[in-house]
Order: sequence, then C-alpha cells, then structure tokens
Amino acid sequence: MSSKNSAQTQTKLHLIQVKGTWQCHGEDAPLTQGKISDAKIYESKSHHGLTWTVVSPIVFTYKIVQRENLLDPGDDTLLWGHLDHEDFSGAHDTSHPVKRFIVIDETVQQLYGAKITEYFNTRQVVYKVLPLPTTEENKSLELVTKILQEVHDFGLDRRSEPIIAIGGGVCLDVVGLAASLYRRRTPYIRVPTTLLAYVDASVGAKTGVNFAGGKNKLGSYVPPVATFLDRSFFQTLPPRQLSNGMAEILKMALMKHRGLFELLEAEGPQMLESKLQSSDTGSRCTRLAIHTMLEELAPNLWEDDLDRLVDFGHLISPPLEMEVLPALLHGEAVNIDMCFMVYVAHLRGQLSGDEKARVVRCMLGLNLPVWHQDCTLDLIRKALSERLKHSGGSPRMPLPTGLGQAEIFHDMIGESVLSQAHQMWTSELSPHSK
Amino acid sequence: MSSKNSAQTQTKLHLIQVKGTWQCHGEDAPLTQGKISDAKIYESKSHHGLTWTVVSPIVFTYKIVQRENLLDPGDDTLLWGHLDHEDFSGAHDTSHPVKRFIVIDETVQQLYGAKITEYFNTRQVVYKVLPLPTTEENKSLELVTKILQEVHDFGLDRRSEPIIAIGGGVCLDVVGLAASLYRRRTPYIRVPTTLLAYVDASVGAKTGVNFAGGKNKLGSYVPPVATFLDRSFFQTLPPRQLSNGMAEILKMALMKHRGLFELLEAEGPQMLESKLQSSDTGSRCTRLAIHTMLEELAPNLWEDDLDRLVDFGHLISPPLEMEVLPALLHGEAVNIDMCFMVYVAHLRGQLSGDEKARVVRCMLGLNLPVWHQDCTLDLIRKALSERLKHSGGSPRMPLPTGLGQAEIFHDMIGESVLSQAHQMWTSELSPHSK
Ligand SMILES: NC(=O)c1ccc[n+]([C@@H]2O[C@H](COP(=O)([O-])OP(=O)(O)OC[C@H]3O[C@@H](n4cnc5c(N)ncnc54)[C@H](O)[C@@H]3O)[C@@H](O)[C@H]2O)c1
Ligand SMILES: NC(=O)c1ccc[n+]([C@@H]2O[C@H](COP(=O)([O-])OP(=O)(O)OC[C@H]3O[C@@H](n4cnc5c(N)ncnc54)[C@H](O)[C@@H]3O)[C@@H](O)[C@H]2O)c1
Repeated sequence: MSSKNSAQTQTKLHLIQVKGTWQCHGEDAPLTQGKISDAKIYESKSHHGLTWTVVSPIVFTYKIVQRENLLDPGDDTLLWGHLDHEDFSGAHDTSHPVKRFIVIDETVQQLYGAKITEYFNTRQVVYKVLPLPTTEENKSLELVTKILQEVHDFGLDRRSEPIIAIGGGVCLDVVGLAASLYRRRTPYIRVPTTLLAYVDASVGAKTGVNFAGGKNKLGSYVPPVATFLDRSFFQTLPPRQLSNGMAEILKMALMKHRGLFELLEAEGPQMLESKLQSSDTGSRCTRLAIHTMLEELAPNLWEDDLDRLVDFGHLISPPLEMEVLPALLHGEAVNIDMCFMVYVAHLRGQLSGDEKARVVRCMLGLNLPVWHQDCTLDLIRKALSERLKHSGGSPRMPLPTGLGQAEIFHDMIGESVLSQAHQMWTSELSPHSK
Repeated sequence: MSSKNSAQTQTKLHLIQVKGTWQCHGEDAPLTQGKISDAKIYESKSHHGLTWTVVSPIVFTYKIVQRENLLDPGDDTLLWGHLDHEDFSGAHDTSHPVKRFIVIDETVQQLYGAKITEYFNTRQVVYKVLPLPTTEENKSLELVTKILQEVHDFGLDRRSEPIIAIGGGVCLDVVGLAASLYRRRTPYIRVPTTLLAYVDASVGAKTGVNFAGGKNKLGSYVPPVATFLDRSFFQTLPPRQLSNGMAEILKMALMKHRGLFELLEAEGPQMLESKLQSSDTGSRCTRLAIHTMLEELAPNLWEDDLDRLVDFGHLISPPLEMEVLPALLHGEAVNIDMCFMVYVAHLRGQLSGDEKARVVRCMLGLNLPVWHQDCTLDLIRKALSERLKHSGGSPRMPLPTGLGQAEIFHDMIGESVLSQAHQMWTSELSPHSK
C-alpha cells in the first residue's frame, strides 16, 4: 500500500459560512465574505476509498473568581459572577424569575444552609437546595443519577441557569459529572468549601466518580463556567481537612515554586492554626497554589499531554487510597506517595540528604502522614506498572530535582533503587523506627 | 462597581513550557525558547478580589474512512484505520497481543457475527464481542453501565485499544457515551450498519441515551477516533430501515444541496430497491450526504452555535418520536416534522406550491410517512416553545427558502401560519383526505 502516494492526494478544505450555511473551500478558492471556521476537513482519496479527517478545536473558557463575602446577599457573584462584565447588568430578563439548582454537601448544609437560604431568598431566586452525603464511599454513578433526576424534575434552562455545587472535592466532582451529562452539557459552578477542593478540584476541567473499586474511573473533562473561591469556609474545617489540602499545595511547591515551599516550611503550622484566614500568609499561600496549578492545567485541560508535573503524588496514592478507604484522606495518601518519591529522588542523586530532610520536616509541620504500612513495595510496584500500562509505554514520572523544581523522567525506576528507597523510607519514618 | 476600570487592570498571560514546567509570561516578556501553548490566562484584580479567566482550546481530530471490505481479514482498517498513515506500520509492539473490545447490536451479531469472529481470529487478536439489544427502548444509562462493567473486566489500555461499536445509531450512541466516560475518555470506533447511522450518527461528536422519558437527555460531545463506513451492511437492512436513513439524507438535500435533492427525486425508489449498493448512484448519494453533513457539523462540534441547519426536522420530531415509541423510527418522525415545516415555508412564501409538491412527492417516493395523527397542533406548539426555552430566546428555525437552500429564522412562526399550515397539511396529506 503506497501510503506516501495516497497522502499526496489529500486536499485541505476550509469551512466558510454564508447566510447560515457552511461550505467547504479549497486552499486556492478566493476568500469570499463570510465567517471562516477554525475547523478544517482533509479529504483524501485512494483506491481503497475516501477518507475525511476532521480537525476541530473547541475553546473552553472559565473563570476562577476569588471573593471574601460570597454568601453576603449584597454580593452578586454567586448569581452572576460566571458572566462577562459586559453581560452583567442586562444579564437577566426581569420578566422571568431567576432559577438556580444547588447541590450541597450534607455537612456543609448543616453549617451554612441558613446563610445560603437567606442569600437566595433575599435575591428572590426560585431555587432548590439538594443536600447529599457526598463522601468518597458514595462517589458513584448512582449519586450522579440521583442528581440528574432531581435536576430534571426541577427544570432548568440549559443555557442560562447553571447548576451550583457547594462542598468538598467529592461534591464538586459528582455534580460536575452530572452537569456535563445533562443535555450533553449544562453549565455548572463550583464553590469549594474544603482547602483541597479550593486549590485542586476547583481549578481544572476534571469531573469523576469511582467505579468497580477504581478511583475516578468514570468522568469527563468539562470545566465549570466558573469557580468561586471564598476562604472563609475554612473556618469550620477540622484540622485534618486543612492538612489534607496542604498536601496538594505542597505538591505544587515541590514541583515548581521554591518560594511557596519556603512559605510552607516557615509558616505551615501557623497557617494551619489560623485556618488560612490571614490576609497575608493565608492569602499568599492559596493564591500561589492556584496560580501554579493553573499554569500546569490550563495548557493541558484534557490531559492529552501525558507529561504532567501535577501527577506527582498521584502514581501510588490512588490504589493506596482505595485500599485503605476510609482510613486515609486524598491529600494524606498523596503525601505518603510524595514522601516515598522524595526518597527515590534522593537515591537517584536528585535531592541532597539535607533537602530530603527539609521536605520531611515540612510535611510533619503540616501534620501530614509521611509513611504508611499498607504502602508496601508490592503495592508500589503494581501501581507503577499500572502507570506504565496507561501512559504509552513510559512511566513519565515527575520527580523533584531540587526544592521547587522538577522534571519528568521517562526511565523506569530500577528495582534496586525502588527497594532501597522503600527500606530507607521505612527505617527512617515508620513508627517502629522512632 | 466600575466594571470598565476593573477590566483595564486585566493582564493577558501566555504559557510557555521549559523542561516540562509551564510558566506564565506577560505580553512584553521576551519569548524564550520553549513550547508556547494556545491556552491563555487572563488575570484581573479589583477591590473585590482576584479573577483568573482560562481560555483553553482542545483540538478534536477524527477520521471518517469509507471502505468496501471492512470485514475482509486482509483489510487492516478495522484494526488500524484510526491511526495516521505514518504510525501505521510500527503501530503495534509485537511483543503484546492486540486487544479489542467490540460491542455489537444483537441483530447485527446474528447476521455478521461469524464474519467478525473470523476477522479477529485470523488477525490473532485477543478480543471480546459483547452483543446487546441496543434498541431505542433500551437506550439508557443502565446499558452504558453494563458496557462499562464489561470493558472494565476485560481490561483495556486507555490509549491504544479503542472500543469498537458495530450497529445502528442506538449502539453507536450508547457505546460512545460509555467510552467517553471510561477513564474520562477512552478512544472508540464507530461502524454504522444502518443507513441512518451511516449518514448521521457516525459523522459528528454526539453520544447519548434517553432519560426520564426524554430523548437523548444525557450524553456527551466526544467524537470517535474513527468511523468506518461500509455500504455492504445495507444488504441485510429491511426496506423500512433504508427509508428511515433516506430521511436524514433528504434533510441535507433540502437544506443545502439541490443536486442531492434532484438525485433523490429521480433515483430514490431505485436506490431503495438496490439498497444503495450501486457504485454509481448509491455511492454518490451517501458521499454527498456525508460531505454536506460534515460541513455543518465540523465547525460546530459542541453545538455552541445555536444556528444549525441540521436541526431541520428535529424541532417537533423528538417529542413525537418519544410519544408514539416504538411506532415511528427516528427518520420517520424527522420526515413528518420536515413535511410539516415545508408547509410552513410554503405559507411564509418561501417555497412555491410546485416546490412543495415536489418535496412531498420525493418523500413518498422514498416510502416515508408525510403525516401523523399524533403530530397535533398542540404537540407542535409545545415542541416549539420548548425549543424557544432552550435556544436563548429565539426559535432559530431552519426553514427551506427554495429547493436545496435554507436560512435560519429568528422570528417565531405566527399562530395563524402555524394553524393554517397544520390545516392545509392535514387536508392534503392525512389518509382521510385521499
Ligand atoms: N476534579 C479534580 O481535579 C480533583 C482534584 C483533586 C481531588 N479531587 C477529588 O476530591 C475529593 C476529595 O475532596 P475533599 O478532600 O474536599 O473531600 P470531601 O468532599 O469528602 O470533603 C471532606 C469532608 O469535609 C467536609 N466539609 C466540607 N466542607 C466543609 C467545611 N467548610 N466545614 C466543615 N466540614 C466541611 C465534608 O462533609 C467531608 O466530610 C476526592 O474524591 C478527589 O478525587 C478532584
Ligand atoms: N449521535 C448522533 O449524532 C445521532 C444522529 C442521528 C441519530 N442518532 C440516534 O440514532 C438512533 C437511531 O439509529 P438507527 O436508525 O440506526 O436505529 P437502531 O440502532 O435502533 O437500528 C435500527 C434497527 O436495525 C437493525 N439493524 C442494524 N443494522 C442492521 C443490518 N445491517 N441489517 C439488518 N438489521 C440491522 C437493528 O437491530 C435495529 O433493530 C436514535 O437513537 C438517534 O437518537 C444519533
């Protein structure tokens, strides 16, 4: 088969719209008036038959808006903050009532339900609040179906009435999946109430639920129209949940921001103490976390590029988290994974003993677990070979090469480094070693 | 709130990747070496807080490949046709067996199962064929879950082992949804075996299932990696299924291709007779159908543009189809909708009486129903007001303005035109009128 020859007969076609009708035009056709699409069609003909190749870009646009009084009835953000400034005033046809469907984590409902009700009542919104037990154990397609049924019964305008999710990462992930399925895509808004959801689950496009014992096995890549960030929700977070979120911040620090690492190192315990409410350190820390996360996620929204720094801490942690569920929180499992990998990086000569010790101290200062008995060499081996299977034949392993810098490595970690790292890690950090 | 002023403090940030790390750079920063992303981040600061706006394009690429001997074990297409020519020969690491998971319509399995088994056996593929009763009544999330469970148990490499769907539009839609959910996106291949699926369900990005009594209420916009078209499947199609597909071809003809309309008018009955097997008319007819459909779908893959010619025949037909299920096939309901709209266009002065008569004659020649008792004025009114609700306040009604040309109208059809059209349509075409 002469692939070279058949490739030569390929014609590139532009798409031009005149009076509502799209038409293909070859390269040399004069550009008439009309709208030209970014999508292209390539037509090729061989003796086997015809082939059309469609190349069509879809542009995703979403806003991440940081506010201090999201639930203050005087603040427009929750209702209209997803729109462009320009649209803002004329946004709402006053002949119809404003409608909103809100899904909220049950615990968050207990804490903030009254304020939320007051917000929507004051604004004369027709609304329904659906509180759900959005826990990791319930993070399933059944919960998605439940939301879909309620959304359907309530009735929403697919274009202008975004579904609002208020809660931790589980709530945001489940609602995001439901919204992305409903009428093939209904806009939704994320309001994270945990630190972890604030710095991680809120920033990208991913939605998901667990399936067949696998973490986030089902999901989609559809970003919300907007995410609204308000640190004041952290005031009611238990300390463990704060530490949990700190793990994802530490990840970004280790991978790409030495200044953020030094902030965590110096101020971590105090930030936990103040629940990140300080307009100085708390604000700076979360801002840097979002900024660094956005840098990595925005260019790779659908994870087409397999080389991802944000995967640090996420190679071993998914099976570990599912294995011991509910013993470890997501960030805790991530931290254990990161800590082991710091030992690997050290043994590979990428981190000095002093740097390794600083990282471990910082983790302990953030009250994060640095070792776990169920994170066995066997589990690690399995997780890495799973990774290999799903990332095109290379482990694409993000590893620190200093404090606040990292690289993606394409070689598999040798068995001896792996077992040496596990031994050193265990002997230095397991409870029996103390 | 000074939106003008706050807009002025917006900074556009480019994303540049150096050594695996992405970093934001302002407009005026010197472009260093490194990869620059098409994604942009806009940062703006006001006294209310910070806002990041992410604008990130995702490029979807897929192939539509027409072949004549898809199930011939000597033909590579079914296994490797989704890859680029370049990748083709070295595509497969011969140390691992090739794995494929195939979902197939039960009836198609009865007809072609043996050939399919022979294909994969001859090619020494490790495969599983899952036959399912993919009917409109079963087109549900439960069927999607069933597929997901089987795919999960079989085990697939998310990157390199596409799921193959072989069947009519229901099968392709359900498998497409399952694949788009599995690990947030697993590649899939569409092999349409009905005419309707060949010219319509195969061409775009849409997947879907019915939910809560609503047609395609859940779904996604994720195109397959490839669609493989082979007209020889039509040989076993019952005549009614052929007519059903002809309705979607007629839609494209009426909206934008006079030549295609004239072909259907002149050769429709003969093409039905020969089950579109002729390498002359059958080939030309399906090629034009795909080409015109692609022109309209490729620039609007996620249906962000609400002005869509392809919606012709799809304003009244969804509730009609669901209402009388299973009495009318999809294309039949579409045809009844189109026929009514031809009367509307006529009464609006857009089609002459002669043109209207030619369209109706052509429909009858294709053995398509042109009228239905359950398509009442009431159902039509409800369908149009539903449309209005979900398309941003304008009906955005595609209507013919001649044979093979159309426009999108933004005015609501007046009540008097609607009832006059319904009366004329009924008196001319209902069985009692004969
Ligand atoms: N989509 C993404 O990109 C992404 C990124 C990271 C994590 N995740 C997902 O997020 C999930 C973890 O998120 P999480 O850590 O927020 O867990 P979570 O949603 O389970 O919330 C943790 C706990 O905090 C409670 N809570 C929430 N807000 C509170 C508040 N303001 N005050 C008091 N209690 C509160 C909740 O009721 C819950 O018990 C995981 O399922 C993970 O897969 C998704
Ligand atoms: N995704 C899209 O863009 C899109 C576009 C148009 C229609 N659709 C969907 O497609 C569905 C309709 O598709 P359809 O008309 O193909 O219906 P279908 O899938 O129900 O198939 C029709 C019948 O033909 C049988 N069949 C299939 N191939 C055969 C063959 N080669 N020989 C003999 N019998 C065969 C099937 O068993 C079935 O009984 C609808 O659910 C509609 O919503 C989707």
